Amino acid sequence: MTVSKAAPIHAAAKASRPARKEPADAATESTALELGELSEHLGYALKRAQLKIFEDFLRCVAPLQLTPAQFSVLMLLDKNPGRNQTEIANTLGILRPNFVAMLDGLESRDLCARVRSTNDRRSHILMLTDKGRAVLARAKKLVATKHEARLNELLGPANRAALLAMLATIAREF
Amino acid sequence: MTVSKAAPIHAAAKASRPARKEPADAATESTALELGELSEHLGYALKRAQLKIFEDFLRCVAPLQLTPAQFSVLMLLDKNPGRNQTEIANTLGILRPNFVAMLDGLESRDLCARVRSTNDRRSHILMLTDKGRAVLARAKKLVATKHEARLNELLGPANRAALLAMLATIAREF
Repeated sequence: MTVSKAAPIHAAAKASRPARKEPADAATESTALELGELSEHLGYALKRAQLKIFEDFLRCVAPLQLTPAQFSVLMLLDKNPGRNQTEIANTLGILRPNFVAMLDGLESRDLCARVRSTNDRRSHILMLTDKGRAVLARAKKLVATKHEARLNELLGPANRAALLAMLATIAREF
Repeated sequence: MTVSKAAPIHAAAKASRPARKEPADAATESTALELGELSEHLGYALKRAQLKIFEDFLRCVAPLQLTPAQFSVLMLLDKNPGRNQTEIANTLGILRPNFVAMLDGLESRDLCARVRSTNDRRSHILMLTDKGRAVLARAKKLVATKHEARLNELLGPANRAALLAMLATIAREF
């Protein structure tokens, strides 16, 4: 797989969206700060890219009011119905208190339901409601057509696949 | 630049560190959850990789008790002495209340100092203290020899450079 070093931007990707104000614009051009070695640190670069991607995700899914984490939970429940809270939280790497708060929110919007397990009375089984399934279907469409499609335009399909493979390697092996 | 699709793991990188428990281990192998399409979403993959990298960063810099964000601030102050709070916070994309709290912490440990600007009495100029410079020098060494070196081993230098370029493209253009 060949990756162009500069990850050239397709004209279409740039043209299809309005310019956004960058944080650095707050200072004038002539006094922009120097990042120095910081820009060579993978952790820094990852965090900046992740923030941009999450911002865009929120914008694309705004009509449905779903965060990336909530979307992940709905995706996982859809693919793995009847699993318990601990399994879902562990798989996504979400801390228990945060996960319980997130489930409270999703349940109050009738997107998922907690049912006490018949095998283990202390554990709750999670499932999507009909409304949760419908909202997830709409969210997947928005994410695919707006968010992921633009990322694909920006990077090109081959670079996008290479990026995904490297991120998976880091998540799995580092 | 050529990127191998599977981002092969160097034997040295795997051998040099103890195995860590993965979140998914909490469930037994036979009942591991299916991620499905989620694993194809760049935002999800980025967040998982970023969490792994931040965890490792914290471990590597543990003797100095610095978070990745605190390290970024010290790096930026070192490279850009005499800038004000707003410029540093904007450059790093940190929200003002969070940044003020972080500065309080760094200042209480005598790693940086806030000085009222002589040009604009309402603004504070930031600078590293001597102790801050010394701690940053030690942190940079730990990050380079432990954290970034292992990432380099895991991905290989060419893949690492390609990854960095793509993340910078996303942060700049998406």
